[in-house]
Amino acid sequence: MEKETTIFGIRAVIEAIKSGENIDKIFLQKGLRGELFSELEQLLKKERLNSSYVPVEKLNRLSKKNHQGVIAQIAPITFYNIEELVTNVIESGKTPLFLLLDQLSDVRNFGAIVRTAECTGVSGIIIQKKGGAPVNGDAIKTSAGALFKMPICKVDHIKDAVFHMQASGIKVIAATEKTDNTIYDISFKEPCAIIMGSEGKGINPSVLRIADDKAKLPLLGDIESLNVSVACGVFLYEAIRQRF
Amino acid sequence: MEKETTIFGIRAVIEAIKSGENIDKIFLQKGLRGELFSELEQLLKKERLNSSYVPVEKLNRLSKKNHQGVIAQIAPITFYNIEELVTNVIESGKTPLFLLLDQLSDVRNFGAIVRTAECTGVSGIIIQKKGGAPVNGDAIKTSAGALFKMPICKVDHIKDAVFHMQASGIKVIAATEKTDNTIYDISFKEPCAIIMGSEGKGINPSVLRIADDKAKLPLLGDIESLNVSVACGVFLYEAIRQRF
Repeated sequence: MEKETTIFGIRAVIEAIKSGENIDKIFLQKGLRGELFSELEQLLKKERLNSSYVPVEKLNRLSKKNHQGVIAQIAPITFYNIEELVTNVIESGKTPLFLLLDQLSDVRNFGAIVRTAECTGVSGIIIQKKGGAPVNGDAIKTSAGALFKMPICKVDHIKDAVFHMQASGIKVIAATEKTDNTIYDISFKEPCAIIMGSEGKGINPSVLRIADDKAKLPLLGDIESLNVSVACGVFLYEAIRQRF
Repeated sequence: MEKETTIFGIRAVIEAIKSGENIDKIFLQKGLRGELFSELEQLLKKERLNSSYVPVEKLNRLSKKNHQGVIAQIAPITFYNIEELVTNVIESGKTPLFLLLDQLSDVRNFGAIVRTAECTGVSGIIIQKKGGAPVNGDAIKTSAGALFKMPICKVDHIKDAVFHMQASGIKVIAATEKTDNTIYDISFKEPCAIIMGSEGKGINPSVLRIADDKAKLPLLGDIESLNVSVACGVFLYEAIRQRF
């Protein structure tokens, strides 16, 4: 089921990026210098790819090959183009229901969310290129294989996705406790996209500001938040309930 | 936050059990023999305690002390008595909402469920002495501390809890795909208890048979089930929605 692969070596990774390989994340050795390495760093910046500087020991664990301080992980799925996906969903006649994940970082939460999304007929999931959970074998496993069935798009910034949804007539609803509205006060019947924030910080304030609506889950106890994959499931099933 | 401790040595563990220590799980070395060891095994059977036979390497990882092939883990919380808890909840005037977990085995799912239960005002969670996830430091962590706030009862068999609920006028609803009713067809307004099954096998058929009602979540995709902590969250929030 898994076909996760890695590309290693500075030159090889540069060429992979230039040829449009489906790269999920790049690991760079801390403290590395050199002309070719700088070229790679500039390319990563330009393409806004997800990268981390790590100790050489971490690279050695990732690959036993001569990695020269650079390892790129290829995503095991092909990402969709957001414009094409939104157009196709609208043209299909189905009422769009998108999910926007704002730098959700735990791979198990990400996998569980993809699984729930598949079970609730979500049209597609939009993630940010940087800062999110890796789209790797663990994500596939915790998604129960749903990652192969659910269209996933990567955008430079979640704000781009919000603007694109709004321009396409899709209402954007932010899942946040910073509102008086519960999910039962909000309509999910029209075309909509739900934004879920990261485990630690919730939704970025700049993203929250441009959302059309905000909704929270009622919390009856002392604990101030739910696990994000549980919260996402309750949002999606409320949409299903209203649409049924 | 954590106060998980271990007791080691055959005699010490026997004495701990006899003095009513709050033991969550006992690890026994595979292939061990002896009179005292047999006495312990009989005691475990009599008290229906959760135990596993493991290689000595596992025991050595759990404790660097001279464990003599036996380590008992003490639960970091105090368990409630089901009769007292149900009586107290009914007398409080609140509409009871209990959760029965039928051998749910993943500690992260268990923790997430306890967290959701605290957030939805669940009256208490009933687990089975044997076969479930350990009630340990990991469970506390993934529950975001909710394990310290949520009453947990242990019963010999989940069926005992079902009978006790029914005898107390509490309707028992099984979460299972083996029904035509969705959660939107079922009333959660009266006193009720929801049974969630294990990750792999769902609810035990003998338990399913005695439930008063069955309900499923609509599944709109190809994947045949949700993560159990997500499914549990959707059930509990449907109860909240109906009761609001």
